[in-house]
Amino acid sequence: MERLMAGGISLLELSMEGIAQEAGVAKATVYRRWPNKEALLIDVVRRLEEPEPQPLGESFRGDMVTLLEFMRRRGLAKRSRWVLRSALSQMGSLPELRSLYHERVVNRRRDLIRQVVRRGVERGELRSDIDLDLLAEMLMAPMLVRTVLWEDAPLDDPGLSELIVDTVLQGVAAHPAAAG
Amino acid sequence: MERLMAGGISLLELSMEGIAQEAGVAKATVYRRWPNKEALLIDVVRRLEEPEPQPLGESFRGDMVTLLEFMRRRGLAKRSRWVLRSALSQMGSLPELRSLYHERVVNRRRDLIRQVVRRGVERGELRSDIDLDLLAEMLMAPMLVRTVLWEDAPLDDPGLSELIVDTVLQGVAAHPAAAG
Repeated sequence: MERLMAGGISLLELSMEGIAQEAGVAKATVYRRWPNKEALLIDVVRRLEEPEPQPLGESFRGDMVTLLEFMRRRGLAKRSRWVLRSALSQMGSLPELRSLYHERVVNRRRDLIRQVVRRGVERGELRSDIDLDLLAEMLMAPMLVRTVLWEDAPLDDPGLSELIVDTVLQGVAAHPAAAG
Repeated sequence: MERLMAGGISLLELSMEGIAQEAGVAKATVYRRWPNKEALLIDVVRRLEEPEPQPLGESFRGDMVTLLEFMRRRGLAKRSRWVLRSALSQMGSLPELRSLYHERVVNRRRDLIRQVVRRGVERGELRSDIDLDLLAEMLMAPMLVRTVLWEDAPLDDPGLSELIVDTVLQGVAAHPAAAG
C-alpha cells in the first residue's frame, strides 16, 4: 500500500487496474483477493482502525482528553494515509463501506464518549441538567470536522484535546452568572 | 428536479442518462445545458444555497443563535432534498464541486461565525483568553456533523441552536471554579 502512495495515484484514479499496475502484479491477482474496489476499501478500513483506548474512569476531564487525543492522532493519520482518505472520500458512493465504517468506527466512538459523559454526571463532575447526547457531540464534533471536512484546519497541536475539554467545562461567557 | 426525486432515482444511480429519462427529455437536451454530471451538480448547489442572514450585532447570543438556526434549517433541507444529498455524497470524487462548495458555502459561514465570536470578545461578552477559531468551530461543528455525517442525529428541535450557544457560554462543569 505504501508503494501506491509513492506512485502518486490520485484519489480519483483508484481502480482495480491501477492498483494492480502500481503493485506490479497481474490484475487477476488483485481480483482474487478482492472482488471489487468496495471490498478492497472495506478491508483497508478494517485493518487500519486501531481499537479505541478504554477510558480508565479516573475523572471526566482525564478520560475525555484521552479519547479526544486518540481521535486527534487518528485524524492526523487519516489525513496522511492515502488509502484512508480515498476510502473516506468514496463512502458517499459505496454504501456498504459507509455502513461498515459507521458501525465499526463512528458508533463505537460515540458510545464511548457518551459513557464518559454519563459517568461525569453520575460522579457530580458535570451539571445534571445537560443534554448528554448533545454534549458528547459537542466534544467530538470539532475533532471530527477538522479530520474529515476541513482539512485546512490544524490538528497537530497536542494541546487541542485539553483545550476543547476545558473550554466546554468552563464555558466562554465573560460573566458566567449572566450567561443563562 | 422535483420529478427526479419523486421518480425515486437513488443517489447512486445519478447519471446524465437517468436524468434525461426521468425528466422525459432527450439525452442531448440535458447535455446541451450541462456538459457533464459535475457541471449539473455545481449548478444545483449554486441555486439551492440561500445567502446567510447578516448578523445584526445586537448580542453574541442573539447573533449566534440566528446563524446556527440558519444552519439547522439548511441542514434539514439538505437531508430531505435528494439533489443536494446527492451532490454532497459525490463531492469526494468531484473536486471542482468540492472546492466550489467550500468557497461559496463553508468558508463564508466560517467567516461569519468568526466575526460574531470576535465581536463578542470585543464587547466583553466572551472571555478574552479563548481560542477564537476553535470556539467558532465548536459552535458550528455539532450542527455540521448532524447535517452531513450523522443523518440519524436529530436536527428538528427548534431549541437546538439556543441549547448549543447556552451550553458553550455557561460550560458544563458542576463547580465552575474547579474546572480549570
